[in-house]
Amino acid sequence: MEKLISTRTIYKGKILDLYKDKVILPSGRESFREVVRHRGAVAVLPWINREVILVKQYRYAVDKYLWEIPAGLKEIGETPVQTAQRELVEETKYFPRKLEKLVEFYSTPGFSDEIIHIFIATELIEDTSKNADYDEFIEVESFSREKIEKMILQGKIEDAKTLVAINLAIAQNKLN
Amino acid sequence: MEKLISTRTIYKGKILDLYKDKVILPSGRESFREVVRHRGAVAVLPWINREVILVKQYRYAVDKYLWEIPAGLKEIGETPVQTAQRELVEETKYFPRKLEKLVEFYSTPGFSDEIIHIFIATELIEDTSKNADYDEFIEVESFSREKIEKMILQGKIEDAKTLVAINLAIAQNKLN
Repeated sequence: MEKLISTRTIYKGKILDLYKDKVILPSGRESFREVVRHRGAVAVLPWINREVILVKQYRYAVDKYLWEIPAGLKEIGETPVQTAQRELVEETKYFPRKLEKLVEFYSTPGFSDEIIHIFIATELIEDTSKNADYDEFIEVESFSREKIEKMILQGKIEDAKTLVAINLAIAQNKLN
Repeated sequence: MEKLISTRTIYKGKILDLYKDKVILPSGRESFREVVRHRGAVAVLPWINREVILVKQYRYAVDKYLWEIPAGLKEIGETPVQTAQRELVEETKYFPRKLEKLVEFYSTPGFSDEIIHIFIATELIEDTSKNADYDEFIEVESFSREKIEKMILQGKIEDAKTLVAINLAIAQNKLN
């Protein structure tokens, strides 16, 4: 455990806040912790016709296009299931009649409290009622399990939540 | 792609820097991106006597003790292999005679460029030459593959890099 002595708000932003906290370590020594506080995200592994649907989008922070499972930030008042349904429809035009919780985890607990909830979505039905976000530019494609395993070996899947979701689903025999 | 117009340095810290960048989206609209820049980390899945060694430590950002594979930040001038060797000895007192690259990925590309390199470490030999970091308080324990699979199902492994490493190693039949 580390005991908080004082906190300094460095920045309060749109998707994250940054704090510099002074703490006492178990050794008795004082230290600082830089902490990014974040409202959390939800990601969905969509499984249809024995294929996984992935989206490819530009990620400014890493200056690259990444293949990822559909995901988004929780809106205020939304449950994780509601965020999962909304994001899946927005990004893929499919509504999941079945959502099964796969796991939840901290993306990088060394400096952030961001938590990511992951669901497997099955029994998908088309839903074109909502227009895509005008400022989201994404490619949507579906891949067999074998193709994705090859992409992982080739280093073509570089996003943590996507690696967690796919490998956990494979390990639990959910992509058979 | 998004084109940078101007960048504002919010904070330059010990383990991370924060920038607020003004960009032009493909639609032509202007927007802001909050980006946490980070020097990257290395994590190691140590496999010995058909067990995985995990460490349990307090994570201030999430105010919890988490079970994780050994990991640490890259020191200046270190290669990922050197960081892996150093961190494994510091945290577990084992030196890996064999390190095999498993994957590298972005922990949370929606707001950070942090990259994590993961290795599987085998042929471990004891190395008690280095003292543990005075301010690191960790528990070290080894677990069978079956035990860890159960911990994952029970939600007891909550760290992204640890979930990536273990599930990828299982999916690739490296923990047999």
